[in-house]
Amino acid sequence: MRPPIAILGAGNGAHAFAGDLALRGYPVRLYNKFAHEIADLQNARGVTCEGVVEGFGALELVTTDIAPVIANADIIFVVVPANAHAFMAQACAPYLRDDQVIILNPGRTGGALEFRNVLREHGTTARVLVAEAQTLLYTCRIAAPARVRISMVKREVTLAALPARDTAHVLARVNPLFPQFVAAADVLETGLDNIGAMFHPTTTILSVGRIESGRPFEFYRDLTPSIARLIEVMDAERLALARALGVQAQSACEWLARSYDGITGDTLYERIQSNAAYRGIAAPRAIDVRYLWEDVPTGLVPMVALGRIANVPMPTCEGLANVACALLGRDFWREGRNARQLGIEGMKIAEVKRLVMGDEVIESIPNLVTPSPNVERGDAMR
Amino acid sequence: MRPPIAILGAGNGAHAFAGDLALRGYPVRLYNKFAHEIADLQNARGVTCEGVVEGFGALELVTTDIAPVIANADIIFVVVPANAHAFMAQACAPYLRDDQVIILNPGRTGGALEFRNVLREHGTTARVLVAEAQTLLYTCRIAAPARVRISMVKREVTLAALPARDTAHVLARVNPLFPQFVAAADVLETGLDNIGAMFHPTTTILSVGRIESGRPFEFYRDLTPSIARLIEVMDAERLALARALGVQAQSACEWLARSYDGITGDTLYERIQSNAAYRGIAAPRAIDVRYLWEDVPTGLVPMVALGRIANVPMPTCEGLANVACALLGRDFWREGRNARQLGIEGMKIAEVKRLVMGDEVIESIPNLVTPSPNVERGDAMR
Repeated sequence: MRPPIAILGAGNGAHAFAGDLALRGYPVRLYNKFAHEIADLQNARGVTCEGVVEGFGALELVTTDIAPVIANADIIFVVVPANAHAFMAQACAPYLRDDQVIILNPGRTGGALEFRNVLREHGTTARVLVAEAQTLLYTCRIAAPARVRISMVKREVTLAALPARDTAHVLARVNPLFPQFVAAADVLETGLDNIGAMFHPTTTILSVGRIESGRPFEFYRDLTPSIARLIEVMDAERLALARALGVQAQSACEWLARSYDGITGDTLYERIQSNAAYRGIAAPRAIDVRYLWEDVPTGLVPMVALGRIANVPMPTCEGLANVACALLGRDFWREGRNARQLGIEGMKIAEVKRLVMGDEVIESIPNLVTPSPNVERGDAMR
Repeated sequence: MRPPIAILGAGNGAHAFAGDLALRGYPVRLYNKFAHEIADLQNARGVTCEGVVEGFGALELVTTDIAPVIANADIIFVVVPANAHAFMAQACAPYLRDDQVIILNPGRTGGALEFRNVLREHGTTARVLVAEAQTLLYTCRIAAPARVRISMVKREVTLAALPARDTAHVLARVNPLFPQFVAAADVLETGLDNIGAMFHPTTTILSVGRIESGRPFEFYRDLTPSIARLIEVMDAERLALARALGVQAQSACEWLARSYDGITGDTLYERIQSNAAYRGIAAPRAIDVRYLWEDVPTGLVPMVALGRIANVPMPTCEGLANVACALLGRDFWREGRNARQLGIEGMKIAEVKRLVMGDEVIESIPNLVTPSPNVERGDAMR
């Protein structure tokens, strides 16, 4: 009998992971914090997939009780907005056992660092493997109750364990299920390729007046030249940070050309305008949206925290985050992935690099300590 | 023969000052940096006023040569966007003589401090009196070439000299021309009542997407609830700064009720919506506007500089200024009224207060050193 797979979360991505794996015969158990978000899955006893994956995937268990979902799970897929990662870490902490693999889908910036740190703070002694994917494997949307439309499964998604010397071990465990996962150099690489944190808060904040005017518009196609310009300034700060941390990162402009077909133009504005995949994506109708409350605390905040360690000025990222705090009346610097929450407070760059690479033993927990003679590095595999 | 009055500038306010004073028989000389902005005044040899002031005021001199404008002038009215104050200080520095009165209309935040500091840096030894008005005396608009429409002359405008012990001397000189000027406590009071710096950059930046959509809208009447909320957060930072500096400041919400008739509602949003005077004011059609390039370097930047001295956190003011820098590709922290430019670098609160009050002799120049037995303080006069 195969060990069960745990899915934490009940959104679009969690539906896709659960349905796809169940359809392929894996025993799947799904946990979610809020009962109302899983009532349909419980009634249906599974997920129906449509699109590039088709059929009904029966789930073994759908529950708000995390213990039986984590118990005996081989791999735990965390598929929630990144600002819920800390909660999920705290929720599973008491039930984890040695050798379990935890994958954040995606980690955004600093996901694995935060997850590991929260486990440690909650006294987890199990030697689990924590990893983060760079982006969500599926392009998908819940189409109806207990039904998910999967329009694409990405051909390749990079993944890094924390520390990176465990990446090969994680891939050895997850590749039989998903050969799409390939190694990134480390979690700084997966975390700093957070393009959403460049696009979402900028566009939302510079569009507050337009959003609240009540006249609908498209998020990307109606994005204006000055918004694109602000994204480029923020992106330059992110790239400077990546350089300072020794990470290969691609610009938002390069990323567009690589991620989508038919991109034309030289400037970011032109490339966004040329992207057919961006057509029809409505702008939010209010400003209390994931583009702010996820992307600021799990994108801009950890980037600025890393920037302070790396001595890289990030005034625009920091400034925009401050404006987001004021607009929503929240302190994302406190509730988000600050240096303390990432477990890197007071560290220098070299210490952060050692922590993410695992070149020496920094902590006894939570990650499995393994010899690392022949671990493939991401830059060799990409 | 009366000594001439100097007007520096050629915008709406400069037209009004020049025309009004000339109509009342004062010899007026006007200087402006750019020739094309004064060609109409030179052709007309004066300004025609309409509205609450009516008639043709003949000007004695209209020129791009500042020397004969400053020479023998009794009072120098500086009536330019505040980001041009430093240039004007530099331009008049070589020609000033003891006892001349210089009034910035208005100073915005830190106008007199910057003006005095630039004079000092350019070696001015003349003992001039530098003062700043809290707002522009006239509500006016250039209606046609060499013609200004004055719709209102404010009943009362506060003014402070630097240092404040000179305020009574300045009022004694300027009140025969304009009895509307009354004493403020000091230039921190006139400078921190900069409500425009609260309204303009916020509304412009949160409306970038709307401005560049090309669909016209009104600046104040279409201001949305979240924009008003951001203004309130910034305003709370400004009020905290004022408290820390021992300055009586009014909130933007109070200011609206005091400055306009017929204001209703409790919240800032409601009060803005209720203001009939705000009807019909079009939003800018592009973002490279005075609302950013004047209000950020002469409003937000000096407030944040004072906040650092007073140890008052101003994350929203600072954050919004950072975003403005990125949007316009300019470094307002460098080109604007930072602590160095204000001449207060490295000072503590008490030193700044002594500087603005003049309770002891800080510098031998540029201000006239006078005994101050019976100087009226603004808080007694308002």
